[in-house]
Order: sequence, then structure tokens, then C-alpha cells
Amino acid sequence: MKAEIFSIGHELLMGELTDTNSSWIAARLPALGIQVQWVSIIGDDQQMLTEAFARGLERSDLIITTGGLGPTQDDLTREAVAGAMGETPVVQDEVVQNLERYFQGRGQVMPSHNIKQALLIPSARFITNRNGTAPGWWTERDGKIIINMPGPPGEMHPIWEEEVEPKLLELADDEVTITRNIKTMGMSEGAIDEIVGEFFGKENPYLGIYSKADGIHLRIIARSRDAATAKTMIQPVEEAIHQRLGEFIWGYDDETPEQAIGPILKERGLTLATMESCTGGYLANSITERPDSAEYYKGGVMAYSDAIMASNGVPKETIENHGVVSQETATAMANAVRDSLNADYGIGIAGVLGPSEVEGKPVGLAYVAIVGSDSVKEFELRVPPRRVVIKRRLANQALIELRKLVVASGGAS
Amino acid sequence: MKAEIFSIGHELLMGELTDTNSSWIAARLPALGIQVQWVSIIGDDQQMLTEAFARGLERSDLIITTGGLGPTQDDLTREAVAGAMGETPVVQDEVVQNLERYFQGRGQVMPSHNIKQALLIPSARFITNRNGTAPGWWTERDGKIIINMPGPPGEMHPIWEEEVEPKLLELADDEVTITRNIKTMGMSEGAIDEIVGEFFGKENPYLGIYSKADGIHLRIIARSRDAATAKTMIQPVEEAIHQRLGEFIWGYDDETPEQAIGPILKERGLTLATMESCTGGYLANSITERPDSAEYYKGGVMAYSDAIMASNGVPKETIENHGVVSQETATAMANAVRDSLNADYGIGIAGVLGPSEVEGKPVGLAYVAIVGSDSVKEFELRVPPRRVVIKRRLANQALIELRKLVVASGGAS
Repeated sequence: MKAEIFSIGHELLMGELTDTNSSWIAARLPALGIQVQWVSIIGDDQQMLTEAFARGLERSDLIITTGGLGPTQDDLTREAVAGAMGETPVVQDEVVQNLERYFQGRGQVMPSHNIKQALLIPSARFITNRNGTAPGWWTERDGKIIINMPGPPGEMHPIWEEEVEPKLLELADDEVTITRNIKTMGMSEGAIDEIVGEFFGKENPYLGIYSKADGIHLRIIARSRDAATAKTMIQPVEEAIHQRLGEFIWGYDDETPEQAIGPILKERGLTLATMESCTGGYLANSITERPDSAEYYKGGVMAYSDAIMASNGVPKETIENHGVVSQETATAMANAVRDSLNADYGIGIAGVLGPSEVEGKPVGLAYVAIVGSDSVKEFELRVPPRRVVIKRRLANQALIELRKLVVASGGAS
Repeated sequence: MKAEIFSIGHELLMGELTDTNSSWIAARLPALGIQVQWVSIIGDDQQMLTEAFARGLERSDLIITTGGLGPTQDDLTREAVAGAMGETPVVQDEVVQNLERYFQGRGQVMPSHNIKQALLIPSARFITNRNGTAPGWWTERDGKIIINMPGPPGEMHPIWEEEVEPKLLELADDEVTITRNIKTMGMSEGAIDEIVGEFFGKENPYLGIYSKADGIHLRIIARSRDAATAKTMIQPVEEAIHQRLGEFIWGYDDETPEQAIGPILKERGLTLATMESCTGGYLANSITERPDSAEYYKGGVMAYSDAIMASNGVPKETIENHGVVSQETATAMANAVRDSLNADYGIGIAGVLGPSEVEGKPVGLAYVAIVGSDSVKEFELRVPPRRVVIKRRLANQALIELRKLVVASGGAS
């Protein structure tokens, strides 16, 4: 089944808002055997929209849209679908009553323009929206499907998961695409390319290699009639990669470094504390992205001055003798926060975030220390001197190295 | 001048990567008098791409693309432009020599497939890329322009700013659109709607109202022959908004809360320290987004356990008597970190990030304290119980309230 996705709205087209809906939807289609062949962002212009639907119906089996279902004059998705289908929308009294109840429940009178949201064409039926007043439309005729959902992700995501995906799953009878992403760090792209070279250049399963902020990713993509067969095709490639790159692999699929280390700490009852300078709070903020992080993360210090390092137990002499950006200071930071919070592991990061060099050390240079009860890992890193890159790369690498250390200390995870 | 934007790449179409290039470019076009009428994401498929260019040339004056200029077989943007223009690409020896020098400079031999990047059609000329091997193309014929840039933002942004925008500015003779965004917090959308109601519903200048994570935004959009006139049209509306909403305004255009407070602290020689629990490091990470933050930010404590609060000076009795999630504790946090770091202002945030309630207090409830030498601001907030929303909303509001307090303490900013 061939699909295209429209994100509808003037703000998207003006670049005032970045469209995240289409990539969210696109990522979910291959597993349903649906092939995305086009994504468009279209303004609130009825003629443009109608033209887009008409063209989409010619070249695709399925059009999925978000946006343009609100009550205002700018919301033209319904009108455009009706136009492309050549059908006339009719007000559905039952839906008007539901809308009136919705507003009554909030002590308000329904504004008259909300009646737009009760329109329906003969080939369409409503998709329930539990989180807003804009119901979706599921239109089906002559073997073609149009699915219209509201734009706010908080409304669209539940509609997709509860209403749309289950129905698409029933319809899917085409090829299924299964992807397995393997994340590595510590070996260069060129070296990995050589080691698993024999798997490149094949159509199915396909192996791709990608350089990212959290290391080198290997992605295996298999297509088959059903998911089970596609998974069987992935397995031997994944096993070979595992045998050859084992210790460099730190995560899978869309796992982040904080997601990869979290469960290991939790499972083993281990705790973590951090003291960071040049990552500016990014490390702590990453760790606390996991909802269960309070179970293993005891907290951290954002050491943006010598004063806060001193008041949290970093010896002044260490900073004076070796400099605030030094391996010794990073290790002292890890030790100090580990001791004061009585944690099993401490991470210390001391480096130069910029805008200018510190103690003659360049922006992007950093020292990292990971200290456990019977293990220490210390290393220097140089990353490109851009603020966001420094924060992200260093925090990622510290967590990935922590994972390696914990796994090595206590057997395989 | 009517334009469309293509983001090219299989990964974008599969939703594995969110396209940020097109919104980045789209946001920059109105000020050049260029109207974006379409944005498409297209896979690495030569036929699809050629069709897209051919159709784009029919309906638009300008096509701007990112992606598909690399050296691999999947990079097909050049081939598609050549196809749509009906021209044959020829290898440019001079560019081959440049590429060879680029690789020699890195002690490498140029891989043979990089020769693709030296191809050019007669109607195109190269756009220099200082940050990578993929030069762009600027193709111009029969009054139509195609601009192809590489996909990585680190390469594309400088190319845009140094090469593309200046040339587009020369060509622009259409209407110029100027936007002024005014950011408020503390007054409801409905109240603002009433107060500045007379400016709504007009075509030019147009006034829009938007509810965002950092408050209610008012956006004035004016179109005119030239930027100066458009700015003159904006001025009276902006002044009226200022008179009526003055104290609720905290920022302009794409300013973030940390960008709005930073210069004020710096200018007045004031310093800041933070202790946060339920924002999980997001507050510190926001503050350190500004390159000059080390000049006014002394650091922070990510208080994810009672132990770290105690070791940073929060009295145990305060937590025991009032609970870890209480106004008293938030104020004690602000005081403790302000005192220990000898800062002018301290921010304390104590709340429930989830996944479950704390001391019978629900996820999303938080207490904030901002303490200065002669001023204290304490408040309770309830935000939707989603992790990212809690972190972002609370950090934003704390910084916006800090700004108000600092401005009120020392006269108008």
C-alpha cells in the first residue's frame, strides 16, 4: 500500500512551527506494510489543498493528514477532501449535540462556528477524538483511503494509537518492513565498514551505516510478507554484527544512552551521582528523562563555578595544582559527588564549553571520569566546538562508558 | 516570488529523522519577499525527484532543496535537476582537483565515487561549501531558479547565510513580510483577546494570538513593498500592545526565557544560582544555552535526593516539617544555593516529576521560590502531568518570573 502524508497549516509553511507529526506518522507505517512515498506541508488554502488531495488520490492508495480540522475559517481540510471527492458535506445533528454537551460540561455555550466540526460527506465517517473538539475523518471510496486527524500531537497520538493504527493493521496485506538499529561507540565508521563489509550492498536484508551524535549506527532493514519472516532474515546479520563488534555495541533501535544505562543500574540496585561543568546540566537532564530515574539517580551538581565545586567537596588544591579543566579535577569531581551522596558510581565532567578557551585549553576539550567502588575510567575527549555538540556528545559518551564499566564490573547485562 | 522547498532523503521519509531544514528555510523567506507555497519531503528516488522538480518549475519561481548531494549512489538530487531541466551533467576538472586537495589535506585518497560531486549542468553554477565536500548548485533558466544545498544543518546554514540569502535579497522585488512576535506570561488568552481585540481581524497588519509552552504570543505581520514601510505599519500596534500589556511581556521574536533574562543579569552585574528537583536539570541546561552564561550563572544543584539537598545546605527540619514538595522547601533550596554560592539571586524548584505522586501530591504540582537580596517571590504551579511539559513549563516560568523580579528591583530594563 502506497501512502502520502500531509501536514496542514499556515504556521508550518511559514516555518514558525516545525512539523513533527509527519515524521511521527512516517516512522509507524513501514511496520504496517505501508510505503510512504511523499510528505507535503501545505498551507490553509482550499484550492492548494483540494489539488493536493486530488493528486494524492491519483498516485497513492492512502493519504494521511494532520491539521486544519479546527472550527475557524482557516480550517479547510474537510472542505478540501469534500472538493477532491466531489461530495457535499452535511451537518450531523448527533455530533452537534455532542459538541454542545462538551461546551456545556465546561459551563460554556458552543460558539456557532464550531458547527463546522459536525460536517460529514457520505463516504466519510468520524474518528473519535477524546482530547479535543475536532473529530477526525476516515474517508473510503473506490479503494482509496483518506485519514484526517487534528494537528496537536496530544490529540493526534491517542487517535492514531487507538483508532487508526488498529484499522490499518487489518487492511495491511502488503510487504512488511522490519528495521533493527544497532548503536556502537568507540570504533570508527571505516573500521566497522571493513569488519562487517560483506553485509553491505545487499537489497534484502539491507545494511546501512550512519554516523550520529551518539556513535556509529548499523541499521538492518528486511522486507517480507510477514513480520516473523522479516525478523528471521535480520537475525543472522544481527548475530554476526554482535560477534564482531560486541563490546562496542551499547544500544538498539531508538534507545538513547540514558535509556540504555537506566535499566542496568536499576536491575542491579546501583546508584549514580554526577558533577558536570561543560555539559551545563545536559547530563542531569538526560538522565532524568527516564521516568524511573529517581530509583537510581541521586542527583547532580552543575559546577559552573569553582565555588560550587568547593562546596560540594572538590579539593581546592586539585583545581589549583592541575587546573579546573584537567583529568585530576574530573576525577575529583566524580569522587566528591559519589562520596557525598553515597552513590555506587560517580561521573565527573570537566571541560571547556566556550565561548572562549579556559586555562589555555580549547573549546570542546573535556576530561571525563567514571568512578565505581572497584573501577575507574578516565578519558580525554575533543569534540567540535559548538555548544549543543559539546553538551550532547560528552553527556552521551559519559553514559555509554558508564554502561560499559557497569557491565564489565558485574558480568554481561 | 513563489517558492517551494524540498527536503530530500530516505531517512526523512521513513520518519527516522525529523526534517528541520525546511522550517528553518521557510522562516527566512517572507522577509525576502518570497512566498512559500509548498514544502515536500521526497525520498532518494530519481523518478520521484525528477517529477517533483518538473512540477515545481511549473507552479513556482523558485525551488530550494536540501539533501541528496553526497557522493553515494543514493544521492540523486543533481541527476534529478539535470533530468527536469533536460540537460547533461559534465565533470568539472577544476572541482575534481579541489576535492582531491581536500582529501590530500586529510592524508587520504579521494574515493572514486566523490567525482559525482564535481558534476555540473550548463545552466547551473556551484555554491561553495566551506564545511563539507558537497558543493551546492544554483541553477537558473527561463526565469526559474533551483537552489540545491547539502542536508547537514552545519553545512547548510553557513551556505544559506553567506551565499544564498544575499543573492536572493538582490532578486527580491516583491512584497516583503515583516513579523514581530511579542511573548507574554501571566494573563489568559481570553483576557488578552479582549484587551487588544480591536487589532484582530485586520488583513495588514495582521495580529495573531497563540498559546505556547512559554506563555501567550501575539504576532504582528505586516506586508509592504519594503521592509521600512512594513516596520512602520507594525509600530503603532506594537506600541498599543506594550501600553496595555507591558508588565506581562517578557520577550520578543524567537527569544527564549533564558535569552530574555541573561543580558539583564549580565548588564547589571548580577549572579544566579539554582537548586531544582522536578525540572531534573532542565533549568540549568536552559540557562547554560547562552554562550555568556558563565558570566552570571554560578551553577546549580540537581536535587534528586534528600541527601544532595542536605549536603547543599537545605535544613533537614524544613523537609521533615513541611515535606520535600512544599513552598517552604522550595524557598529553603533557593536560599541555600544562593548563600553557598554567594549569588545575588537563587531559584528553588520543588515539585513532582512523576511517575507517581510524592507525599500525596500529584505529578505536575510544584513550588517555586526566587530569592534576591531584598525581594522574594514564591508561587505554586500545576502543569499537565507529562514529563517534558513539567520540565519545560516550570523552568520557563521560573526564568520569566526571575526576569520580572530583577526588572522590578532595579527599574525598567
